[in-house]
Amino acid sequence: MNIGIVGLGLIGGSLGMDLKALGDHYLLGVSRRETTCQKAMEWGIMDEASPNLALLSKADVIFLCTPLAALRPTVNQLVPHLSSATILTDVGSVKASVVNDLATLWPNFVGGHPMAGTAESGLDAAQAELFVDRVYALTPVESTPQASVEVVAGIARSLQARVIHCSPEEHDRAVALISHLPVMVSASLIAACTTNENEDVRSLAQTLASSGFRDTSRVGGGNPELGMMMARYNKDAMVRALSAYRHELDQITQHIEAEDWRELEGILKETQRDRQTFL
Amino acid sequence: MNIGIVGLGLIGGSLGMDLKALGDHYLLGVSRRETTCQKAMEWGIMDEASPNLALLSKADVIFLCTPLAALRPTVNQLVPHLSSATILTDVGSVKASVVNDLATLWPNFVGGHPMAGTAESGLDAAQAELFVDRVYALTPVESTPQASVEVVAGIARSLQARVIHCSPEEHDRAVALISHLPVMVSASLIAACTTNENEDVRSLAQTLASSGFRDTSRVGGGNPELGMMMARYNKDAMVRALSAYRHELDQITQHIEAEDWRELEGILKETQRDRQTFL
Repeated sequence: MNIGIVGLGLIGGSLGMDLKALGDHYLLGVSRRETTCQKAMEWGIMDEASPNLALLSKADVIFLCTPLAALRPTVNQLVPHLSSATILTDVGSVKASVVNDLATLWPNFVGGHPMAGTAESGLDAAQAELFVDRVYALTPVESTPQASVEVVAGIARSLQARVIHCSPEEHDRAVALISHLPVMVSASLIAACTTNENEDVRSLAQTLASSGFRDTSRVGGGNPELGMMMARYNKDAMVRALSAYRHELDQITQHIEAEDWRELEGILKETQRDRQTFL
Repeated sequence: MNIGIVGLGLIGGSLGMDLKALGDHYLLGVSRRETTCQKAMEWGIMDEASPNLALLSKADVIFLCTPLAALRPTVNQLVPHLSSATILTDVGSVKASVVNDLATLWPNFVGGHPMAGTAESGLDAAQAELFVDRVYALTPVESTPQASVEVVAGIARSLQARVIHCSPEEHDRAVALISHLPVMVSASLIAACTTNENEDVRSLAQTLASSGFRDTSRVGGGNPELGMMMARYNKDAMVRALSAYRHELDQITQHIEAEDWRELEGILKETQRDRQTFL
């Protein structure tokens, strides 16, 4: 199969590595930067690479691996080069707004979201087998051609990912809870600790900070643009998740203020048990 | 030196292991359970062990390693067996209430808090070199004998811990921020995700949960009694930390609701930078 990849960063580059390694595909890569294209060719991840989207006219399937904000302009520029049989799919972490947008521009579009990533970004961060045993969510809608869904699912399975299907809206509400909400929860923790008005306390907190703070603050210290984009493209689910979260936080706070220690311990027993079940 | 340890759990057991390994000390252990005493003797962590606090009458220094709630009753029972030269010190994660309480019962008391621990508890979880390179906070007050502070600091340094001194109040405000607040922040995240009213979304969230949720929820899934005790014995600093946290969370939420994406990204840039500086 001729497989195109637009955006040769962590996800696009890793996808290319594994697809090329399968030996069955001809890989066509597009990156805005000529140097990235050359690197992808030198590393043997791509058979051809260019900053020019026209390269993808011979692709059967194209993975859109750009940031969320670049998806629509990319598809707009890509469409003149495509035959109607070309399948487009994306890897964005938000689905409803993306699917609504892109399926209008290109009916043969399959929304996708591989649950894989690292703290790094860019082609240098690409790694083999990034998708092995990871969930790969596909979010077809009524108008999505079933055959195209099968093609994308087949490619994802060939990377040893675990393919699941869900609606774009359910996907977005779920990732708002387990992926986007943690970023805001964690960022707020960093801000509360590092902006304390008492310099002695702030300095002491820094000295005493250990694994609890480190783990809880990790995702709040991640890529700011990505965090902002999650909220921007998943605003409704994000606001809903934040509201549910604040309700839980307020309950805990009220128990502490009222010295309802039994109630507080009851909640912490539930969260201990529920986390074990959940993970 | 004759060193007593009351409470042979993770911290008491680990302390015993390293102090015994130094070869200079005679170790006296007290645990409520006879089987724990026997185990500590069999493992060679203690020279003598007993459920009877009278064993500690010959100790020069006694480490109180019980849960916070047991500290006061333990010291009350211990006092009749001690000579006034005996130094008492604790390892509790809260200091102001403990120091106020115990220094009244026993003037020769030095508040302490080694920043070490694991997710496990009990003697079986004890491990050698738990305190190496960890911060060991000592919180003397005006009435604390300076010579006793030096003795405890010397023992902590012999475990290769990094000894720091601070006031009990500053300690509590700092640990409220970086240790106790994360527990409540993280528990609220678990509750928000696992109690979502839509079963499909909840189930999908469970399927999609990966490292972001895992890390951010870790401390909220820890020991419920310990989490409750942190809040109970550090209530004022905890309430203050929760209030500061909620202010930060509300700001982020308001920017998302108002679609102030530049402001949101600005906050996330700050938290990314501040976390790097902080850790």
